[in-house]
Amino acid sequence: MYKGYMPDDRLFLAVDCIIFGFDDEDLKVLLVQRDFEPEKGKWSLMGGFLKKDETLDDAASRILYRLTGMHDIYLEQLYAFSDVNRDPVARTISTSYFAIVNIEKHHEKSTDNFKAKWFSLSKVPNLIFDHDEMLAKAVRRLRRRTSINPIGFELLPEKFTMRQLQKLYETILDKELDKRNFINKIKSMDILIKLKEKDMTSSTKGSYLYQFDQEKYDEKQTNDFYLKL
Amino acid sequence: MYKGYMPDDRLFLAVDCIIFGFDDEDLKVLLVQRDFEPEKGKWSLMGGFLKKDETLDDAASRILYRLTGMHDIYLEQLYAFSDVNRDPVARTISTSYFAIVNIEKHHEKSTDNFKAKWFSLSKVPNLIFDHDEMLAKAVRRLRRRTSINPIGFELLPEKFTMRQLQKLYETILDKELDKRNFINKIKSMDILIKLKEKDMTSSTKGSYLYQFDQEKYDEKQTNDFYLKL
Repeated sequence: MYKGYMPDDRLFLAVDCIIFGFDDEDLKVLLVQRDFEPEKGKWSLMGGFLKKDETLDDAASRILYRLTGMHDIYLEQLYAFSDVNRDPVARTISTSYFAIVNIEKHHEKSTDNFKAKWFSLSKVPNLIFDHDEMLAKAVRRLRRRTSINPIGFELLPEKFTMRQLQKLYETILDKELDKRNFINKIKSMDILIKLKEKDMTSSTKGSYLYQFDQEKYDEKQTNDFYLKL
Repeated sequence: MYKGYMPDDRLFLAVDCIIFGFDDEDLKVLLVQRDFEPEKGKWSLMGGFLKKDETLDDAASRILYRLTGMHDIYLEQLYAFSDVNRDPVARTISTSYFAIVNIEKHHEKSTDNFKAKWFSLSKVPNLIFDHDEMLAKAVRRLRRRTSINPIGFELLPEKFTMRQLQKLYETILDKELDKRNFINKIKSMDILIKLKEKDMTSSTKGSYLYQFDQEKYDEKQTNDFYLKL
């Protein structure tokens, strides 16, 4: 086991973050513009190198904080990318993470130090290195997660209408859902709190607002529950 | 991005493999006994170090081949474990993979060079380092995969009865399934070929044998299909 082969050349360990957001219209990803060679000017995922005394999770949190100013973001390790020539400068293995942030909250924070921009998934430009592949894998993982548990809620404002929730799922899954069917399935999950407040902007009658019931959600989480839309 | 922090001490990159098998009775995992310090004599996942010119996938295949003599095994990257002190000898980040092998086929090959042994999941001893955590994560991933697509078929002999298939799913998911319900769901997946042959060992009437239809399976794979048992 822990004898035998060791890398005899230097090798770098990076972390790259796929940061998803949702703005009532589109599923978006936050990219930064690279300001040094190679591939200067191209868009890239936000990344950085692992420090000596931190775990990969720590590194991902630090990188996210640096870009967004946000802590307590949903963050999940995605995949370690290790093609020998994936980075032309030096061999670099990158462990990717995907994060889900609330765009509204993000806008309060400064990202002035970076040329960062939200791109709709359908309008993402060609990215550096293998970052296209990382993004594609993250989208697949996000879709799978959303089918298995109500992860998508992280993308909504604290109070939301049923219509907003449906739109979110339609956007992530990239397909139209039947309204009645959707409402029934979501209600059967029993993880929402219906508020007395209404959102009056969408119609004169108004639409009830909902909140996500974290406690009930945590219970379900442990019992592997499924939402097949 | 690719400037800034680099690890300034040596750091090792390992790959550890969780190898699952099934023998009609139990879901099992293949472990090796460690023959050097620290933790000499304890059981461990099969692992090794990444070589200079290989990807993590290559390393996992090489390690599996070394232990089992088998190529073309179902292999999936699981997770990179990076706790700073996870290995007492030197900082080592290990990317774990899980593999699914057919125990029958494996028995044809020699593993004489290693003290390797199949353990039923319920009888796995304490493992070295964080290997218990790796195994637990692999079991959860396997269960999730099995609920989403028919991955479990890799664990069966080429021709199998419906009873064997149900037993496999019951073992992986660790719960009893209703026979009629199970058969209906499996049939609705439309990925089995019913053979004219029967297995005559289980009853005098015999049980039809089935084969897995790889082509139909590959079609479904691409369309995200779900099997909720």
